[in-house]
Amino acid sequence: MISRYLPLTSWLGVYNRHTLASDMIAAVIVTIMLIPQSLAYAMLAGLPPEIGLYASILPLLAYTLFGSSRTLSVGPVAVISLMTAAAVGRLGLTNTSEYIAAAVVLALLSGIILLLMGIFKLGLLANFLSHPVISGFITASGLLIAASQLQHLLGISASGHNLLDMLLALASNLQHTNLFTLSIGGGALLFLFWSRKGLTPLLTRCGLAAHIATLVSKTAPILAVITTIAVVWAGDLTESGVRVVGIIPAGLPGFALPSFNSELWQQLLVSAGFISLVGFVESVSVAQTLAAKRRQRIEPNQELIGLGAANIGSALAGGFPVTGGFSRSVVNFDAGAQTPAAGAFTALGIALAALFLTPLMYYLPQATLAATIIVAVLSLIDLGALKRTWQYSRSDFSAMLATILLTLIQGVELGIIAGVSLSLLLFLYRTSKPHSAVVGRVPNSEHFRNIDRHQVETSSKLMTLRIDESLYFANARHLEDRIYALIVQQPQIKHFVLMCPAVNLIDASALESLEAINHRLHDSGVTFHLSEVKGPVMDRLKQSDFLEQLTGQVFLSQFDAWQALGK
Amino acid sequence: MISRYLPLTSWLGVYNRHTLASDMIAAVIVTIMLIPQSLAYAMLAGLPPEIGLYASILPLLAYTLFGSSRTLSVGPVAVISLMTAAAVGRLGLTNTSEYIAAAVVLALLSGIILLLMGIFKLGLLANFLSHPVISGFITASGLLIAASQLQHLLGISASGHNLLDMLLALASNLQHTNLFTLSIGGGALLFLFWSRKGLTPLLTRCGLAAHIATLVSKTAPILAVITTIAVVWAGDLTESGVRVVGIIPAGLPGFALPSFNSELWQQLLVSAGFISLVGFVESVSVAQTLAAKRRQRIEPNQELIGLGAANIGSALAGGFPVTGGFSRSVVNFDAGAQTPAAGAFTALGIALAALFLTPLMYYLPQATLAATIIVAVLSLIDLGALKRTWQYSRSDFSAMLATILLTLIQGVELGIIAGVSLSLLLFLYRTSKPHSAVVGRVPNSEHFRNIDRHQVETSSKLMTLRIDESLYFANARHLEDRIYALIVQQPQIKHFVLMCPAVNLIDASALESLEAINHRLHDSGVTFHLSEVKGPVMDRLKQSDFLEQLTGQVFLSQFDAWQALGK
Repeated sequence: MISRYLPLTSWLGVYNRHTLASDMIAAVIVTIMLIPQSLAYAMLAGLPPEIGLYASILPLLAYTLFGSSRTLSVGPVAVISLMTAAAVGRLGLTNTSEYIAAAVVLALLSGIILLLMGIFKLGLLANFLSHPVISGFITASGLLIAASQLQHLLGISASGHNLLDMLLALASNLQHTNLFTLSIGGGALLFLFWSRKGLTPLLTRCGLAAHIATLVSKTAPILAVITTIAVVWAGDLTESGVRVVGIIPAGLPGFALPSFNSELWQQLLVSAGFISLVGFVESVSVAQTLAAKRRQRIEPNQELIGLGAANIGSALAGGFPVTGGFSRSVVNFDAGAQTPAAGAFTALGIALAALFLTPLMYYLPQATLAATIIVAVLSLIDLGALKRTWQYSRSDFSAMLATILLTLIQGVELGIIAGVSLSLLLFLYRTSKPHSAVVGRVPNSEHFRNIDRHQVETSSKLMTLRIDESLYFANARHLEDRIYALIVQQPQIKHFVLMCPAVNLIDASALESLEAINHRLHDSGVTFHLSEVKGPVMDRLKQSDFLEQLTGQVFLSQFDAWQALGK
Repeated sequence: MISRYLPLTSWLGVYNRHTLASDMIAAVIVTIMLIPQSLAYAMLAGLPPEIGLYASILPLLAYTLFGSSRTLSVGPVAVISLMTAAAVGRLGLTNTSEYIAAAVVLALLSGIILLLMGIFKLGLLANFLSHPVISGFITASGLLIAASQLQHLLGISASGHNLLDMLLALASNLQHTNLFTLSIGGGALLFLFWSRKGLTPLLTRCGLAAHIATLVSKTAPILAVITTIAVVWAGDLTESGVRVVGIIPAGLPGFALPSFNSELWQQLLVSAGFISLVGFVESVSVAQTLAAKRRQRIEPNQELIGLGAANIGSALAGGFPVTGGFSRSVVNFDAGAQTPAAGAFTALGIALAALFLTPLMYYLPQATLAATIIVAVLSLIDLGALKRTWQYSRSDFSAMLATILLTLIQGVELGIIAGVSLSLLLFLYRTSKPHSAVVGRVPNSEHFRNIDRHQVETSSKLMTLRIDESLYFANARHLEDRIYALIVQQPQIKHFVLMCPAVNLIDASALESLEAINHRLHDSGVTFHLSEVKGPVMDRLKQSDFLEQLTGQVFLSQFDAWQALGK
């Protein structure tokens, strides 16, 4: 039983020197990558840099204990940091410690929501977020994040609540651009862009094995950090207006229970729900991709518990909402992590950094962190998905486009709400007019085909409609309309057969519609029959008194119906 | 073209002396039935009685011009009157003329919403209201309405925002019961109850033809009205505290444009949307039932235009929201109405009543109107539907129960929202875990069946999963989980076939899931195939590059797949 809720029991028993070595090597590489990333995402969330480190220690340990993926790396990620900034920013808190406290409450609430979803097996709530909505949301978030970092790259102040505001604020402050800042930020940006494609081949040519070269190239951000720190320090550029991270308190976070303030909790509850859902969907998709590569499995409801524990851990250590990140998990996987212990060792690495490295980061330019963020999020922006979705399905495309536009214009939460509402509406719309065809018999066979497309035999007394969709509330009334329209056109019809080979469900609304059809056809002098009803659907119909009311019969096959009624 | 939007052109040409006579007879009977009903529903909506008459003239004329049902009778109905009372009551207006003005705006907004829905063919929005939600809502409304009328029956004042408040208020004021009022109200109530079953046989025994007797028994409310007016007048019971309708201004309503007050419009807009939807669903269902009896058709989008015109007409005449009512339409139908002209004649009848009969109603006891309402709404309460739905489907039952409880406790609008949200959630839940089965070959046949239920041949290299549901965002992730779980269990599998005979749709989310499955199976060393994909689904897949990425093939039949891969 304990292994049910503590997946680590499944690997701790077989832990050995080999897996230990693999995990430790992966941890070193991930730690080096995470130090600048943690600082940068804290900045994105509007928080002091050390909060990024605090959110990278306990969550990793908690996920190690409760998560079901062996290689997922949990911590601050770009989209969730943006959502945190939006949720806390809306409260209008000017005091930094109040702002931090609100971010901590947001992490705690997200943790509680995720944990409850896991316990009550509500992972299916994530199903509301369709792929086009998620994809559109992440693209729009990437654009918003990149735009929000341009001010740091230019050394000016320019913020806004939507993309247009941000760009207008940037344009109007452009004359205040600090050229030192721009040089450092632009240089870091170019180096990081180049490193994604160019560093691995260079390292290979320097004699590194291809695999090692790929991993080492992931540490490019730390190289940019070290170099730009050195430049600012050597050139005394803070005097020339280059903004730096400044004093980061050294040491580990203290444990503290987040403040309980019912008004604050209520204000943040809905945002915490959104953060939980988006974080869960993102994280599960990463975890599944990695697990499949080694024929491992992840358990979505256990993932909810793992992510819930991670967020509660983040809150207890004074951090902000976290989830499983794509790039960090891929690096962890590629670096050879075998078990979640790699996450625990990474936590140790970040803890050592928090203890000993923070003084070295005093001169770290904010522009370098902005460059790190921009390079990271540009990989999230997938405008090609718009084109692919347009080609595949206009209605999925419109849900995606609505999500992108609303997110850019109205912010992250309204963007999601618009996307989810639209995809539900469009799904109902698509199934509300299901494909159906009046069918006739293919001569000398037991097959029945659409009379508009095939040369088939028909009967003047019998009409058969094949319906190609489950019958439920969204299309029940359409079915009524369709049948009445058919009957009014052909007053000589005496028998009407509804052929149901693709009907997987008849809900109570559809049942009432069938009853109404039965009554009304009776009033019109027509007998109503069914054919080819699936077993589970028939079992369900037997629970009602519909079959007793039915004026006609239920035929096992349409051919039986034809033989009995069509002559 | 004009006949498209003016359905009356379809019957006006064939109008003759016979249809005129039929329509006029129906109009007389409906008018007699509607006079007390109109006064009563105005009282239910919290409005002065004459507003009920005003809402019964122009709407009938407007529907005659634009509606598509030949026998639907449009005017004030119980549930819409309750919703009007809830929507306007929430504004907290104490001034009667402001209250009336708000009800008029509500009618205008409903009319505009219905008209727009009709023009943009958005009748499908009504599909959101599943049968269990509508049925639960109407039952709960009936209970609320009946409870709200008990105060008038007892001659006390007792109001509340939900059922419990109302009953508690009644209980605490019970000692103020006016025995004269109770005698009149109770007498009317008993008479009306008895008349529904007992009046027709009595009239038949008195020599009336069965058909005529049924129609005459529908005029029982006017008998109750006349009798109780006489009793109050003769006994001078107003002196004893029996509350009467009092002075009703005689004359026709004046035309007036409703006041435009943007704050008021905004406050009422959402309520108007609910009223429009509920009114439309109710009305269409009545119209369809009656049309089927004569093999006629109604056109839902034209109905929206007809009901929209009726509500705008009501607003222009200073009335409140209206829709097609069940009992009044049935009486109109049974009395032999042949065309919508019967509605125009009824409008004339009500206009004559407003001009000449109002002084006679000074002594009409409110208790009589309350009795009329209670008898009318008790037929709306269908607790048996709870039992039937429970037997047929637990999830439809829970949507129904939630609608009933929330409507009783939190009011009409939250009740609908809860029901709609829950039915959507439950539908997604039901389709999020679609039925699927690993299948094997029935020996020596081309048929494939569930390996858990039948003796079938399987292959150690090939696994086939048959999925019995359309693939879309709500179940795409479940499919991924299911397939990974199967593959992890059976590491010797080399080929995986997804058999799709019941898949009517693959949306963009499901397409991405299929792509992810294809990639991940590839990473696990398994080739991914499809079989028995329907034509329209295949056409759609060809719009994407999925088929090029697919590591395996698409087989026309599962038997082809078996022959190619299973050996």
